[in-house]
Amino acid sequence: MKEKAKILIANDDGFQAKGLQKLTDLMRQIGDVMVVSTEQPMSAKSHSMTIREPLRVNLLERDTDYVKYVCNGSPVDCVKIGYQYFMKEKPDIVVSGINHGSNASTNVVYSGTMAAVIEACMDGIPAVGFSLDCYDPDACFDHLDNYIIGFTKKVLDEGLPDGVCLNVNFPAFSEEGIKGIKTCRQAKARWSEKYERRVDPFGRDYFWLTGEFIEQDSEENTDVKALNNNYVSVVPIQYDWTAYNVLDKFKTWEI
Amino acid sequence: MKEKAKILIANDDGFQAKGLQKLTDLMRQIGDVMVVSTEQPMSAKSHSMTIREPLRVNLLERDTDYVKYVCNGSPVDCVKIGYQYFMKEKPDIVVSGINHGSNASTNVVYSGTMAAVIEACMDGIPAVGFSLDCYDPDACFDHLDNYIIGFTKKVLDEGLPDGVCLNVNFPAFSEEGIKGIKTCRQAKARWSEKYERRVDPFGRDYFWLTGEFIEQDSEENTDVKALNNNYVSVVPIQYDWTAYNVLDKFKTWEI
Repeated sequence: MKEKAKILIANDDGFQAKGLQKLTDLMRQIGDVMVVSTEQPMSAKSHSMTIREPLRVNLLERDTDYVKYVCNGSPVDCVKIGYQYFMKEKPDIVVSGINHGSNASTNVVYSGTMAAVIEACMDGIPAVGFSLDCYDPDACFDHLDNYIIGFTKKVLDEGLPDGVCLNVNFPAFSEEGIKGIKTCRQAKARWSEKYERRVDPFGRDYFWLTGEFIEQDSEENTDVKALNNNYVSVVPIQYDWTAYNVLDKFKTWEI
Repeated sequence: MKEKAKILIANDDGFQAKGLQKLTDLMRQIGDVMVVSTEQPMSAKSHSMTIREPLRVNLLERDTDYVKYVCNGSPVDCVKIGYQYFMKEKPDIVVSGINHGSNASTNVVYSGTMAAVIEACMDGIPAVGFSLDCYDPDACFDHLDNYIIGFTKKVLDEGLPDGVCLNVNFPAFSEEGIKGIKTCRQAKARWSEKYERRVDPFGRDYFWLTGEFIEQDSEENTDVKALNNNYVSVVPIQYDWTAYNVLDKFKTWEI
């Protein structure tokens, strides 16, 4: 690890989120930190990018080893403009979060926190997303300090395999405490959703999405199981989405 | 294949896109069609969902075998509300596109067209995304008719493996004609981007993203190579992003 690591932080819960503040405090113990945060909460914005509207970035705070910007775009926009325009070079690591809410299982597909991580990974930057299995805006993050510093230092020291980033999820604080770390696969699960139809004061319909997370996986080696059993879950994530195990099946198709 | 397939169409280029109209015309030759289109062009909106603002949906056209809605949300919102609220049951297939522009390689990560497909796949619905390697709003799609009908009928007949959907990309029209179909893997590539800084009439900075697609893959069996050689590329895509080949590496990590 270099003397002073160059660390870029992104998130999707907005610049005032408690999880972002915690991650910033921890990273400042390790290196020089640039935060580029979303202006608004951007949960479920996935890998969206801003290409039809101009991006705006404002400086919020600056110190000798630290600078914090807020950007009107998505988490992916924040990462891109963070190192490509403001940092002028690639950081040693991108960390994202700490998200208020789990990004285990298929939540990774919808997550802005993890999209920021995947974006960095696509450009060859080691990257880790941290999420807490608790949606409370005032959630306790204090039981994560050693884990988050540990993961970050480890990735700075050893790097990550080409095309791979990490999705790290933590159990919510409990008296029982965290039992340990499990490297797992992404659990099979889905959101069972309904649309609630309402009528606005002008007589026009509108819809709200409501949903419930349904686990569909009975095996033990998944991130959801790890979290439910009070372990930290670590899933290595790749952005090559090719389903290699069925490639040959389609080669025989005649269209 | 059933007598009359139930087909849901989504897209990310807006309800007036030529590619959407072509896909609708083709699907009406095969089955009963519901289109739920985005109101605005939504390229690069990836798997984003609307959860903080209400969704609005308007009926645009209706016939005995056909209905077209327009929705103010993302392509993923369109698919979800399409079958969960308006169709009231799962369609036999979700098709998305025809996108104006390639979704080969890592473009799949940013693509709204493919996010609609992946969303359907996550809920167990066979789904295919169709994209043309040409961004022209007035692009010619007429060389694709037999392929698109062929792929759709094949998927309706045979289904798709669990957790897998298809990313089908077509070469732009050329006198030479399409040479055939290749089943391939997602090419390694990235966007090399810059932010152009401008100053608005009020003296405030804003940024536009500009970029260039850089292929980083020298092998032959990729979707980009197939397209460049005038073949249709077919990549089976999975939403389990676990990097299984490096799972064991992280099990030895001590944090």
